[in-house]
Amino acid sequence: MVKVLQGKPVAEKLNKQTEQVVQDLKSIQCTPALAIVRIGDDDSSIAYESAAIKVMNQVGIEVSSLTFSTDTAHDVIFSAIDELNEDQNIHGILVMQPLPEGISRNEIAERIDPEKDIDGLTPSNLGKLVENNLTGLWPSTPKAVMELLEFYNIELKGADVCVIGSSPIVGKPLTILLLNAEATVSNCHVHTKDLKMYTRKADIVISATGSVHLITPEHIKEEAIVIDVGYGERDGEICGDVQYDKVEQKAAAITPVPGGVGPITTAVLAEQVVKAAWTFVTERKNN
Amino acid sequence: MVKVLQGKPVAEKLNKQTEQVVQDLKSIQCTPALAIVRIGDDDSSIAYESAAIKVMNQVGIEVSSLTFSTDTAHDVIFSAIDELNEDQNIHGILVMQPLPEGISRNEIAERIDPEKDIDGLTPSNLGKLVENNLTGLWPSTPKAVMELLEFYNIELKGADVCVIGSSPIVGKPLTILLLNAEATVSNCHVHTKDLKMYTRKADIVISATGSVHLITPEHIKEEAIVIDVGYGERDGEICGDVQYDKVEQKAAAITPVPGGVGPITTAVLAEQVVKAAWTFVTERKNN
Repeated sequence: MVKVLQGKPVAEKLNKQTEQVVQDLKSIQCTPALAIVRIGDDDSSIAYESAAIKVMNQVGIEVSSLTFSTDTAHDVIFSAIDELNEDQNIHGILVMQPLPEGISRNEIAERIDPEKDIDGLTPSNLGKLVENNLTGLWPSTPKAVMELLEFYNIELKGADVCVIGSSPIVGKPLTILLLNAEATVSNCHVHTKDLKMYTRKADIVISATGSVHLITPEHIKEEAIVIDVGYGERDGEICGDVQYDKVEQKAAAITPVPGGVGPITTAVLAEQVVKAAWTFVTERKNN
Repeated sequence: MVKVLQGKPVAEKLNKQTEQVVQDLKSIQCTPALAIVRIGDDDSSIAYESAAIKVMNQVGIEVSSLTFSTDTAHDVIFSAIDELNEDQNIHGILVMQPLPEGISRNEIAERIDPEKDIDGLTPSNLGKLVENNLTGLWPSTPKAVMELLEFYNIELKGADVCVIGSSPIVGKPLTILLLNAEATVSNCHVHTKDLKMYTRKADIVISATGSVHLITPEHIKEEAIVIDVGYGERDGEICGDVQYDKVEQKAAAITPVPGGVGPITTAVLAEQVVKAAWTFVTERKNN
């Protein structure tokens, strides 16, 4: 019988911990605060923003939102980020993705103060990931996968893991996090010649491609653990990278879509706002 | 007949290119300059420093050396790095490794100005690697491997590559560089359960463990390409991670040790000093 790895209990546990830290911070006169920056009105961006605001409210983090139209001069947006970097009452900055055309991810990434970069997209935080320097802030989706694996006591040390997808937002940072956890990691992607050669011998298959129903039962070995980071739509239904109905009959454990990794990402964002706030308070004390 | 992938012609080609850029820089009144910082007198450190100085002299880069005894107060060392960061006549800073006990790699990494970090150890440069942001400076050994693969026209896109070793200096950054080049990459290490399962299906095996003669003919498939980044000693002879004498009979191509990747690393350091100097000149012009 397959074990369904629900994201909700993971998110709930994280949020409970975060709520406690928020209380601790408030008791020393620090109210952790997040600023969300959104450019344009992409539907998925708005939905994710709402989900993030809901979690922040729940755990007691203050949220403010800055919204720009896609025709805003880039300098105006960059100045707004600079102001948030300077603002002593803001501990975390979240710039919603996808970004509108004409603004590159790197431009935004290099603008945000790394200490407020709660979605881990600045070069400095990505580099700390490579160093396994735990003072860094990690990208939320890869960290959400790690939280899920930890919650369900899935052993990573020495495990054979196949990550599919090598984006700088999910696949590559996730590969690094798994290496830091001492797993053996294969990273596959659109140029991989023989995907099954890798997936079939993996104890854990993690797919983050956005290619609907890419992973079939033929891709996995019996009793594999299958983590689906995809999010797409087919025949009007939300679905992931994995043919859930068929793969669940072969896997030992599987995440549903929706309801798997998704709900954990916003909990990770909240966790990282309080981490950033703690760092801010500690540095203030030391100066 | 195995093809021996000598490092010397790769280094020579790089050095010739670098020498040309040095001439170009000098013609616009910029003499690229490297400062080497060494703490203690570790033999391998001194040897590597000499090799680096030789290459810098050859291509026309100025070199100055700062040497500290291992009992120097850390603040003195950090202040020296701060001064080099500020010095407008220094374009590259190379802190020799291994570092003496009590100073962590991360402390040094976070101190060096990323724009002078010609051995790519700062978080910001490692993060740019993850982003595939080409304004960054890369760690010299992983970049040396990439230069060797490029020189010998070894196709990476879609190739099955197995990297053995997952240090933040070689294994992990090399894995990322190979992913950026669109190879499928498996990263194995001391916790890997079944190394041969990975190495045997790899088109390219790259070993960077320092474990002498780890890789035997049983590890590779016929006609594999074998890159040896190890450097050790057995029976008084310098050798690498690969049982060269036996593996060369099965491989299509193989790097010797010494004489393979090693000589390329110092050429990469010189290349990155001029890259840093170019960035400095360009920024000066724009300001």
